[in-house]
Amino acid sequence: MSRPRDQRRPSRPQIVAFTTDFGLADGYVAAMKAAVIVHARSASAAGGLHLVDVSHHVTPQDVLGGSIVLERAVADFPPGTIHVAVVDPGVGTGRRLLAVRLRGQTILCPDNGLITWAWRRHGGGVARELAWRPAGGAASATFHGRDILAPAAGMLAAGRSLASLTRTISGALLLDLHPAAPGADRGAIIAFDHYGNATTNVPAEVLPPGASVRVGRRAVGPVRRTYGDVAVGRPLALVGSAGLLEIAVRNGSARATLGLKVGDEVRLR
Amino acid sequence: MSRPRDQRRPSRPQIVAFTTDFGLADGYVAAMKAAVIVHARSASAAGGLHLVDVSHHVTPQDVLGGSIVLERAVADFPPGTIHVAVVDPGVGTGRRLLAVRLRGQTILCPDNGLITWAWRRHGGGVARELAWRPAGGAASATFHGRDILAPAAGMLAAGRSLASLTRTISGALLLDLHPAAPGADRGAIIAFDHYGNATTNVPAEVLPPGASVRVGRRAVGPVRRTYGDVAVGRPLALVGSAGLLEIAVRNGSARATLGLKVGDEVRLR
Amino acid sequence: MSRPRDQRRPSRPQIVAFTTDFGLADGYVAAMKAAVIVHARSASAAGGLHLVDVSHHVTPQDVLGGSIVLERAVADFPPGTIHVAVVDPGVGTGRRLLAVRLRGQTILCPDNGLITWAWRRHGGGVARELAWRPAGGAASATFHGRDILAPAAGMLAAGRSLASLTRTISGALLLDLHPAAPGADRGAIIAFDHYGNATTNVPAEVLPPGASVRVGRRAVGPVRRTYGDVAVGRPLALVGSAGLLEIAVRNGSARATLGLKVGDEVRLR
Repeated sequence: MSRPRDQRRPSRPQIVAFTTDFGLADGYVAAMKAAVIVHARSASAAGGLHLVDVSHHVTPQDVLGGSIVLERAVADFPPGTIHVAVVDPGVGTGRRLLAVRLRGQTILCPDNGLITWAWRRHGGGVARELAWRPAGGAASATFHGRDILAPAAGMLAAGRSLASLTRTISGALLLDLHPAAPGADRGAIIAFDHYGNATTNVPAEVLPPGASVRVGRRAVGPVRRTYGDVAVGRPLALVGSAGLLEIAVRNGSARATLGLKVGDEVRLR
Repeated sequence: MSRPRDQRRPSRPQIVAFTTDFGLADGYVAAMKAAVIVHARSASAAGGLHLVDVSHHVTPQDVLGGSIVLERAVADFPPGTIHVAVVDPGVGTGRRLLAVRLRGQTILCPDNGLITWAWRRHGGGVARELAWRPAGGAASATFHGRDILAPAAGMLAAGRSLASLTRTISGALLLDLHPAAPGADRGAIIAFDHYGNATTNVPAEVLPPGASVRVGRRAVGPVRRTYGDVAVGRPLALVGSAGLLEIAVRNGSARATLGLKVGDEVRLR
Repeated sequence: MSRPRDQRRPSRPQIVAFTTDFGLADGYVAAMKAAVIVHARSASAAGGLHLVDVSHHVTPQDVLGGSIVLERAVADFPPGTIHVAVVDPGVGTGRRLLAVRLRGQTILCPDNGLITWAWRRHGGGVARELAWRPAGGAASATFHGRDILAPAAGMLAAGRSLASLTRTISGALLLDLHPAAPGADRGAIIAFDHYGNATTNVPAEVLPPGASVRVGRRAVGPVRRTYGDVAVGRPLALVGSAGLLEIAVRNGSARATLGLKVGDEVRLR
């Protein structure tokens, strides 16, 4: 005889991870966490529930930038993780909500391209439409993160099936952002991190052996192993922890020192 | 025979939520969390304990602004939640500490008006004085969040009764901040969020049907359903996720675009 | 017969606390948390695992500033806590990684001086080299926080012995930062907090009785008990919640109002 559901202990802890442009000042993130806990509670799963902030500092309404942050989390988190990702300028309009399966994880997000970089970097996934809505039309028109995505994440964390909350669609909306292909002789800067390191769209596996790197007119030399391989204050190219070519300055900011911006071309010779 | 207290599993996870002006740079928030965990531990409750940050970015010593952030959390969190709220310029003086019961939740905070907006929006509660102090005069004179409020929250999370930590008082200190009353033809901006949306003190339920909204000399039209109901870059009025009238700019910042500030009058026709 | 390891419930919740210069925008912190959860999971400890952020706002590559933030956490957290501390400009070079035992806690960090202030304030500890590395050379050259320190923290949280991950060394690298000694007639500002309060290196226990305090040419009077002991806007000296002499301005910023900076001399008469 199986044990009643509400006495089951999850066999392993459940992670729900959050990537948004909400900032941390207003309590919007907390409202989503409360909704996850409430909806996970019904199956007693919450005792083993980890709510992890990926980032809430995506530039407001920058779907493409959010897409790059979300990919990092999908790459670093274990199978079973449920992601709630919200950069959602179209909230309350007819845009769909998605539940995407990728790397054994589930990503709940608006269907506005936010899934793009994770999808492209990891060879695609399965996109379904998140069809669940709260009873009685209780969702606000301005905060689907709290009213739809977080409750759905809580229910999934509690063991509810993805099929019961979603329906089949033909695919997700994807933006024009692609990893450099094998044999490419150039790429572009797609993001900066907190230190001012520039991330490019060039995966380590497509880098030509012995490649030398230029960004704009500036030669930054061969691909190094780590920051300490050049003198303090000097620029360098290296493969960063995301597995992508990065442009950095040792103990400094490549963004500030080299005057870089998103979209700048990076050449490989 | 009842099971010994320290072997009890909580039947549902316990949430302790934090709203402060501490910022995130100094470890002050972590010090409070450590104290909660230590004091909840004694009853083995900590395994099902969720520590949730509401906001630590209240403007330093802005009790009224903190009051508005705290209300959001009280509205969004489930019964049983324990809130620790600290915006406390009077720490170490004779100001009292409170334990307020409201919406089935318990809010621990200084008695300086921080409870105002939650109290007024939710029709009042029961305010008691938090009388518990650490043994031997061990509380610092500058950090009651760590030394009194967080331990009390931990003890409550572990199942200790509110009565055993508090005593009766006649009421809480409330500031001059009120929701607009039914029939009002005007209100005021009381806060801005991360996106630059302006929150007013006008609850949805007192809005005249078909109301048209002005802020200063600017007409922003009828109350819309969501941002997408106007063109990108255009201002609009809508009921936000807090159930209050908001002034926004689609995909932009009403604060910056319209030059708004806290206290600006909003007219309803 | 003892129960199999993977069915043990920890008798008390395990805290893993994070102090870094990573910021919160990029998902680096989340990547470490995922690694802790994954590695703690194997022993089912994760259900009682609390992941607490101390600070991620250490100035990038400011090892000494990070050292002061880390000490606060070591002072405030209970025995058994595992700290992951990462301010690591030398990542990927020959610098060692440490596992330091101090106050019944374990601190995992680079051997670059980050342990200095905790070590000096708490009378030293036991430093061992963290020798564990992921199998197959899987550690990146740029993110040992995710690839080595966090997995080690997870394994320790799951009950693995410190000895099995570390080896004996003669000591940790310490920077030139010392608490003022008994009898000292001066000290220095070592940090500022979010409010602009200046922390000095003068422990309460070495303050001369009845000391009067000067910072630069400014007399700030006797050591007060709390902020409310002077008028709003006035400077004061007091013993802060870290047990160190602080210079503050009531309801204001000492840093801004008095034009203070790290290294400024503080005199005690």
